[in-house]
Amino acid sequence: MTKPSPTAAVLIIGDEVLSGRTQDTNLNTIARFLSALGIDLLEARTVGDRKGQIVEALNALRGAHDYVFTTGGIGPTHDDITADAVASALGVGLPEHPEALAILERRYGDELNAPRRRMARIPESGSLIANPVTDAPGFQIGNVFVMAGVPKIMTAMLEDVAPRLRKGAVVQARTVRVTGVGEGNIADILTAAARAQRDISFGSYPFGAGTAGEIGTNLVVRGRDAEAVDAAVVALLAELEMAGIDAAVV
Amino acid sequence: MTKPSPTAAVLIIGDEVLSGRTQDTNLNTIARFLSALGIDLLEARTVGDRKGQIVEALNALRGAHDYVFTTGGIGPTHDDITADAVASALGVGLPEHPEALAILERRYGDELNAPRRRMARIPESGSLIANPVTDAPGFQIGNVFVMAGVPKIMTAMLEDVAPRLRKGAVVQARTVRVTGVGEGNIADILTAAARAQRDISFGSYPFGAGTAGEIGTNLVVRGRDAEAVDAAVVALLAELEMAGIDAAVV
Repeated sequence: MTKPSPTAAVLIIGDEVLSGRTQDTNLNTIARFLSALGIDLLEARTVGDRKGQIVEALNALRGAHDYVFTTGGIGPTHDDITADAVASALGVGLPEHPEALAILERRYGDELNAPRRRMARIPESGSLIANPVTDAPGFQIGNVFVMAGVPKIMTAMLEDVAPRLRKGAVVQARTVRVTGVGEGNIADILTAAARAQRDISFGSYPFGAGTAGEIGTNLVVRGRDAEAVDAAVVALLAELEMAGIDAAVV
Repeated sequence: MTKPSPTAAVLIIGDEVLSGRTQDTNLNTIARFLSALGIDLLEARTVGDRKGQIVEALNALRGAHDYVFTTGGIGPTHDDITADAVASALGVGLPEHPEALAILERRYGDELNAPRRRMARIPESGSLIANPVTDAPGFQIGNVFVMAGVPKIMTAMLEDVAPRLRKGAVVQARTVRVTGVGEGNIADILTAAARAQRDISFGSYPFGAGTAGEIGTNLVVRGRDAEAVDAAVVALLAELEMAGIDAAVV
């Protein structure tokens, strides 16, 4: 019996996402990062720049999952309240972290004013997450990883996060592209396949509906055992061929 | 005293978003749609194709907000379980809806097989949401609006949802583009502005960090009173000019 794979949640923090001003891409970046490590991302939440909301979401998520990743709200301005909220949620202080302060002093020199110095405040017992883009660090405390909202910085921070995570068996995915018929024509075949193989998941993603182009469905076959996934794909292709439906692994 | 603006939450349903296979865009589409109607989107959640998770999230959100909008999981395949989950969450049955069935019969004719017919099941007392792209309807039950996951279909469904919503005062937003300095150089000015005007929000979104291009910050000034927003922008520009910082409304 193998150990179950770690589970994770993402907490996106920022009014700009909920107002529609910004299209979030961090969730997708983190999702792909975790997939590659075999960590199951089970849920995500998006909240505004409100301390109560951040605290509540963080406490729900950190109790339910092995890891929580937050993005946003760690800059120098008045609406950057993530560090305060994390410290509140964990019931710890928020002192200046000597190493974080040294990093900011090196970067800003004489321009290290009070707002920028706020970025040196790290919840007690937290460790820094390196920011190779603009230096001001993120931090880890317990199972919570607090990262920047700017996608380029967030992505760079994941490099420093990866070695700290327990890995799971990576999910193998194969895509079978079915063309010329809609989802409804292959639903019975998929249902039978899903019932026969409980360790394999069969996702169904139609394309082309409402366009002038070709219609069809991408079937995504996923599981942690590569041989079982390959066998499921072979069986699925055989069923589709028997039904006279065009399909190919892509 | 005006009535407070309605509040809303979004629930994105789909393994493909959490696995990283798909970049969600529906949240952003709904966020912009609600902004234009003066409805405050206060939170969003993303869950997988798991009934228990959907039920739990839906019950949390529908109790806390005036409206909940879900996307995904209403197609014909075995992993489309949103209607089942909504019926469970609300404690109602999931019978075939005569009008939904008629719509599907018109579209599919002889090809209306059992999987497609599943799409006619609508929670008791629910009303249909028109789908002008592929016909299979979404539905509204109470304050919950259940829509497709395919962005083109979801967007089209919003047309039929809009007339059912109570509108609020639309938030007015102006963007002041500050160039040549980072967020930390303007944080004190922003903090003072935010403290002086509690009904106005001042968001700060840096750009250009870590690139070869120009750095700067977009300041987004938001509020429901257009005159107050304009006055706040004028005051902010004056403060920035006094500090010798380049800024312009964009």
